[in-house]
Amino acid sequence: MTDYMLEAIKEAQKAMKKGEVPIGAVVVKDGKIIGRGRNKREKEQNALAHAEIVAIHKACKKLNSWRLDGAEIYVTLEPCPMCAGAIVNARIKKIIYATGDTTSKDKLCETICESLRLNHKVEIEKGKYEKTCKGLLKEFFKDKRNKKADY
Amino acid sequence: MTDYMLEAIKEAQKAMKKGEVPIGAVVVKDGKIIGRGRNKREKEQNALAHAEIVAIHKACKKLNSWRLDGAEIYVTLEPCPMCAGAIVNARIKKIIYATGDTTSKDKLCETICESLRLNHKVEIEKGKYEKTCKGLLKEFFKDKRNKKADY
Repeated sequence: MTDYMLEAIKEAQKAMKKGEVPIGAVVVKDGKIIGRGRNKREKEQNALAHAEIVAIHKACKKLNSWRLDGAEIYVTLEPCPMCAGAIVNARIKKIIYATGDTTSKDKLCETICESLRLNHKVEIEKGKYEKTCKGLLKEFFKDKRNKKADY
Repeated sequence: MTDYMLEAIKEAQKAMKKGEVPIGAVVVKDGKIIGRGRNKREKEQNALAHAEIVAIHKACKKLNSWRLDGAEIYVTLEPCPMCAGAIVNARIKKIIYATGDTTSKDKLCETICESLRLNHKVEIEKGKYEKTCKGLLKEFFKDKRNKKADY
């Protein structure tokens, strides 16, 4: 069985090689990856180009549907509010993330996923590879220690 | 002086003509519209294709920058969590919306815009034309009364 988080990590590593904050995501439905994404904010100079957004965009194109019912998203870092909102809007069933977002303690991802505004709740699971994914981010920022992590 | 909300309303009306939920947005910087967007979810079968996302995407392209510092976004409906998060991520200064989001009382737009996760807060202002924008939405949904408003 495919270890989907490893596929998300591959995407994060590709981002790292390109000088982007190393975050990756894959959308999975019925055992198949239907969308892959990595953070491309700097390359594309686009505030929206987070890994999850790129992956959801591709998954919608692949299925030709804005509804990704029953799909799961594997992501190396806990989603930000934009991405959590996109996951809810796409009716994704479950988020599996490897490492928590330590930039904030406001638990917004959880709050957004549990909101009943669309009559759709998203499950959240803490997955494997926390150390790997946190390590990637730390490595990326090690040369930027005096610079605020701005993602 | 341009009435930017009227420009957002024009976008919402275009969406309505195409059978989309009538929501429009414009991003304004230094007195100029740098991005226009209307809801295109059904046409594009893309969960991300909300008016604000389309407008921010265009504004980033126009400026070739993911940072839209000092920009304002005029939108006919109070942003959903995805769009509020995108507005924060793009470092937009202020949201001006015409009508509140009545699908939920969770005040998530406000919570997201006031979160200090990125050391950037977004101001929120209730603008003009509430009745016009609410009316557009009501008109759109009048034939769908037995169907849940699903946006």
